[in-house]
Amino acid sequence: MPKSERKCLFTPGPLNTSDAVRQSMLLDKGSREPAFIQSVKNVRQNILKITDLDPDGLYTVVPMQGSGTFSIEAAIGTFTAKNAKLLILVNGAYGRRMVSIAEHLDIDVQSLEFEETEAICPLKVAAHLKLYPDISLVATVHCETTTGIMNPLEKLGAVTAAADALFMVDAMSSFGGIKIDFSKCRIDCLVSSANKCLESVPGLGFVIAKKTLLQSAQGQARSLSFDLHAQWQGLENSGQFRFTPPTHVILALEKALETLTQEGGIEARSERYHNNRRILLSGMTRLGFRPVIEDSLQSPVIATFHQPEDPRFEFTPFYQWLAERNLIIYPGKVSRIDSFRIGTIGDLQAQDFHHLLESIEKYLKLTGFDLPLKN
Amino acid sequence: MPKSERKCLFTPGPLNTSDAVRQSMLLDKGSREPAFIQSVKNVRQNILKITDLDPDGLYTVVPMQGSGTFSIEAAIGTFTAKNAKLLILVNGAYGRRMVSIAEHLDIDVQSLEFEETEAICPLKVAAHLKLYPDISLVATVHCETTTGIMNPLEKLGAVTAAADALFMVDAMSSFGGIKIDFSKCRIDCLVSSANKCLESVPGLGFVIAKKTLLQSAQGQARSLSFDLHAQWQGLENSGQFRFTPPTHVILALEKALETLTQEGGIEARSERYHNNRRILLSGMTRLGFRPVIEDSLQSPVIATFHQPEDPRFEFTPFYQWLAERNLIIYPGKVSRIDSFRIGTIGDLQAQDFHHLLESIEKYLKLTGFDLPLKN
Repeated sequence: MPKSERKCLFTPGPLNTSDAVRQSMLLDKGSREPAFIQSVKNVRQNILKITDLDPDGLYTVVPMQGSGTFSIEAAIGTFTAKNAKLLILVNGAYGRRMVSIAEHLDIDVQSLEFEETEAICPLKVAAHLKLYPDISLVATVHCETTTGIMNPLEKLGAVTAAADALFMVDAMSSFGGIKIDFSKCRIDCLVSSANKCLESVPGLGFVIAKKTLLQSAQGQARSLSFDLHAQWQGLENSGQFRFTPPTHVILALEKALETLTQEGGIEARSERYHNNRRILLSGMTRLGFRPVIEDSLQSPVIATFHQPEDPRFEFTPFYQWLAERNLIIYPGKVSRIDSFRIGTIGDLQAQDFHHLLESIEKYLKLTGFDLPLKN
Repeated sequence: MPKSERKCLFTPGPLNTSDAVRQSMLLDKGSREPAFIQSVKNVRQNILKITDLDPDGLYTVVPMQGSGTFSIEAAIGTFTAKNAKLLILVNGAYGRRMVSIAEHLDIDVQSLEFEETEAICPLKVAAHLKLYPDISLVATVHCETTTGIMNPLEKLGAVTAAADALFMVDAMSSFGGIKIDFSKCRIDCLVSSANKCLESVPGLGFVIAKKTLLQSAQGQARSLSFDLHAQWQGLENSGQFRFTPPTHVILALEKALETLTQEGGIEARSERYHNNRRILLSGMTRLGFRPVIEDSLQSPVIATFHQPEDPRFEFTPFYQWLAERNLIIYPGKVSRIDSFRIGTIGDLQAQDFHHLLESIEKYLKLTGFDLPLKN
């Protein structure tokens, strides 16, 4: 692809993938061919390997077609036993989405709500679980993409385990970009997608679950398509998906996992994302933009900025001017604050952020703002 | 791609796509970018156009991420009203799958079963609907990929309409390859996939539904992910998917629809598939293979052959020998007959079938069979 056509997607996904990842989609493969079955096996094993999990150990990977939300729905629908009570911890839109999924599935669900600019508090979760000892499953988002805030997985896992409940983690936008210790965090299942920090194309999610959890979930799913137990059994028995898999998308993910290993694993990728974030935040602060989330809670995935208070600043022309220069930023999603977001994941390097910052500065000067912006 | 790497997928999908279709996946696009929103709009409109349906008319297209089965589940779960009774007509595995979907969703479902080698009989359906006047939705498979048999859509639509029930069609493997008259067939909704006769890559299904049906289905879905009403509203309001779409897969489908139009529309494609089928069936018959489905019921999508009765013939080495030569055929799925299948759809031309037939003849001679095979 000519350089000029490359768009920089400063978004939480779909995001930039490498040429090698996209080129791996140039081959048609039959879904029941041995060569494709091997690709599926590689994907399942390499997701465990990059996480330092033993493929013969406690956990296994169950991929699921569709968007990441589909895998979240599959996990909630498969792992919540009939008549079980589910608690969802909410500090943003993705927590609320899990509540909506559970309500659609007619599951007995409670939500514990926090401010969107505040991390979920383990002490409050522990207190809630004392009040409702019949809660058997607790679900949380790791990095709330609404703001980019990080929730304290290890402490939340500890209070959940202490209450004898299962711990489900939506790590959609963090998995692959932030190291997660499954054992320390007491994770029973974690859901993510090919199309975030693994830097592959969208169209596939996956669940990393304890094999014992999958075994116990036979017949529990509220859906044929989203039955993770049946999906797992199909893959174990024949190596094949039950229903047509997105073959090209899976070949891309196979390549993306190789690329991640070549980069030096999750630690190296995390360092690159942290570096992207440092450049972005210091540059934006210098221009006078204010981040919404305090620094200690900020993930290296996406950053949210207040809209400048100056009424002459409008998001749409700002977005469009940047988009015309192949720089795609992201609208805000925080309920009560006018904000916008800039993602720091994907196949993006330091120079992409320097280029973005220079362009933002140029836009502000062209449109007559004094820098730094007044807030 | 070097010619030698090209595999011929004589399967019901994933199947062969053109170089142009695959190359359209080489671009990363943001899912909320105006350019991508335009691609989604093109896909939705062009699906109607190739079907001779007016984009401003009765029907609309709702795409859904994942495999075709996901779209079937979405249609059943969205369009079956609470407490409504659903009848599914079954003459193969895909009809049975719809029954399983409805059972998982706790829907009041009946099935009317026919032999797998027999088309669904409209008279029997009419009689059943007289017995159960409270059935409000009838679902059938158009071309049962189990065998390749065609069901009589127009007559089934007529008896369903006469019973004042809604008519839902699973046209997964026929849409785009066989002309379907929505008005004559009295279709309320039809489900298909990008990855069959539209000759695009897997990862997206879609539902063509009456707008009035969608309007009446608000709040009915048993799932957040598979809520076709909400998916439709999202697309109408912002042009965007509610949840991350498989952007590359959608760009491929946009190109595949252009290609279909360039080929001369569904009629021209249907003619190519019929020609593929004629070459295949006459060649296989000449070698002594017997088709399972009588000729008048046989679709141009996939053909099922009896395994030769000679006990020396085994499917696995036959399959493997062909696969080593990049010719991928398909195992059988008929319950009570040992059979195998050869697909005639996808980016396959007459010469691919001549090449396949020569290879099969060569294999049979090499392994010591006298031709034609004795049956």
